[in-house]
Amino acid sequence: MTTLTVDLGERSYPIYINSDLLGQADLLRQHIPGKSALIVTNETVEPLYLKKTQAMLTGLKHESVILPDGEKYKNLEVLNQIYDALLRNRLDRNTTIIALGGGVVGDMAGFAAASYQRGVHLVQIPTTLLSQVDSSVGGKTGVNHPLGKNMIGAFHQPRAVIADTDTLDTLPDRELSAGIAEIIKYGLINNTDFFTWLEQNMQALLRRDKAVLTQAIEVSCQNKADVVAADERESGQRALLNLGHTFGHAIENAMGYGEWLHGEAVGAGMCMAATMSKQMGWMSDQELQRTCNLIEQAKLPTKAPANMSVETFLALMAVDKKVLDGTLRLVLMKGIGKALVTDDYNADDLNTAIENSLAN
Amino acid sequence: MTTLTVDLGERSYPIYINSDLLGQADLLRQHIPGKSALIVTNETVEPLYLKKTQAMLTGLKHESVILPDGEKYKNLEVLNQIYDALLRNRLDRNTTIIALGGGVVGDMAGFAAASYQRGVHLVQIPTTLLSQVDSSVGGKTGVNHPLGKNMIGAFHQPRAVIADTDTLDTLPDRELSAGIAEIIKYGLINNTDFFTWLEQNMQALLRRDKAVLTQAIEVSCQNKADVVAADERESGQRALLNLGHTFGHAIENAMGYGEWLHGEAVGAGMCMAATMSKQMGWMSDQELQRTCNLIEQAKLPTKAPANMSVETFLALMAVDKKVLDGTLRLVLMKGIGKALVTDDYNADDLNTAIENSLAN
Repeated sequence: MTTLTVDLGERSYPIYINSDLLGQADLLRQHIPGKSALIVTNETVEPLYLKKTQAMLTGLKHESVILPDGEKYKNLEVLNQIYDALLRNRLDRNTTIIALGGGVVGDMAGFAAASYQRGVHLVQIPTTLLSQVDSSVGGKTGVNHPLGKNMIGAFHQPRAVIADTDTLDTLPDRELSAGIAEIIKYGLINNTDFFTWLEQNMQALLRRDKAVLTQAIEVSCQNKADVVAADERESGQRALLNLGHTFGHAIENAMGYGEWLHGEAVGAGMCMAATMSKQMGWMSDQELQRTCNLIEQAKLPTKAPANMSVETFLALMAVDKKVLDGTLRLVLMKGIGKALVTDDYNADDLNTAIENSLAN
Repeated sequence: MTTLTVDLGERSYPIYINSDLLGQADLLRQHIPGKSALIVTNETVEPLYLKKTQAMLTGLKHESVILPDGEKYKNLEVLNQIYDALLRNRLDRNTTIIALGGGVVGDMAGFAAASYQRGVHLVQIPTTLLSQVDSSVGGKTGVNHPLGKNMIGAFHQPRAVIADTDTLDTLPDRELSAGIAEIIKYGLINNTDFFTWLEQNMQALLRRDKAVLTQAIEVSCQNKADVVAADERESGQRALLNLGHTFGHAIENAMGYGEWLHGEAVGAGMCMAATMSKQMGWMSDQELQRTCNLIEQAKLPTKAPANMSVETFLALMAVDKKVLDGTLRLVLMKGIGKALVTDDYNADDLNTAIENSLAN
């Protein structure tokens, strides 16, 4: 088993990566300090993995709450179902919330853990590729608001992340690709070698070759753990992890949450960031091609939806969390593996890049 | 002007206490780091102090949101009105939320500040006695859930607390008394001299003698600041500040939020805690009398509502945030000025104390 560590002093925690981790009760139990737990999952994951997870909790008081599946349910109203379950079952401040599912479950269960009784314990058991390589690590939690994605939330670190790679066997192809988007992101940000390795191994990833998948998860988690340890609350370099996300969130919001998977929107968003970087003369045409080719190979969209306009993008991007005192900062690239956060760009270049990125 | 400090290292902040502070723009402005602010207030405070507060923000982008007034509106639905205002006005992560009002406004605006874009700046301008001596200091924020008070929330410290004692001139008598309940609490917890001083000065407090009121606010804030600095997240002694609150929250919930003011419920709750402490032989009959007499002098209830039962109390107290792994801890007293948090009590003593505390 691979064990990585997110180094946050007293709040450091392990990321376990291996097959058959849901069979190992001790792994979970050592990270539950109290006598009770609430499993938060969704209607898709429940028939697959809930019983296995419950079996690891024998002897504890434990309950579960099953949420509807999908990004469109990541809102305050559905969050309240978690609070209801916590209070109905009289779970106290020493309880542990276990997030069993993908990014939506992790974000919502995480925010419930951050805010129930002003904070209870949290363990992440991510069951999708996207949540294993990205959202379960780093403590970002939250829900969407009709006017903006992830606008309501908190930083709340888990006590452990348990990534059982066997759970990827049941993942639909479309969600596999969505996860690969975040993996590609790490290569583009600061790891040229990893980007090249991904170019060589994309077919194996899509075939779900277990060794290749596991290696991709490990590299991604290590990268994420390093960034989070250096900048937990995103006052600096952590913002690089939003490469493709400012464009992507606008797509998710405009299309209606859940129409495009988050990873699909990030895929197109990374192409848009590369297009704009090329437009500004920061990236060569060849590097732009390599970026968009890899995203396309991963069976992800490389263009924004045809029915979106420059105006829609600008309006939705104006509420992005990277706006500071009225200025939208973007994550762009000065080449593959050289991302930067900047507000040093022309509005014209942004407009042109969006225009050129719309599907025909 | 008196300036106290809540000592939390880098997150330390001042509490300003004086008359005419709402006229001093610089005082507020130095604690707003960005270029925008949202004032959160309610329909009662708005006609009294909103314009004065807005006048201090000249040159900044500023907006306001007016909430309905009352504890019964301290819920997720009304909280969403604050998120709506933040997003509609495109206020970004560097914005400052200004809580202008009493405890309900402070708790809700504070939780919005804790959770909007995973945390923005907060300044508290408390306009009630209760919020000036207690709720605006220390970073506890949150909303109620139908099944329990303050069950959803976060710790989020303000950048400053500005307590303008002139705002107390417009406070209804009933709310003045409610604030005095929290002042009495500090005497009962660990400050016998202050308790004696309150016995001597209660009539002056009720007459709103400005010098006496200001002294009571200063002693209370200093006491609160000391406790918060020592135990920000309530892993230990901060729980003492909940004296009277476990019983009080049960009353507020059972009667419907807002029927009893929070301070009124805490007044009766402190009598109940004293009654139980006497029942257990920890407090003399004379000390019990002094405690309940002072609460009565402050024009606060000393008995729980007649239509509540022991069973109702026990059911509602079972979801208190001081329950740990199934055991309800109570704040009791071994004499005036000697409060302690304990789970070392008999269920029978608790039942008898509740029974004896119900109004006829």
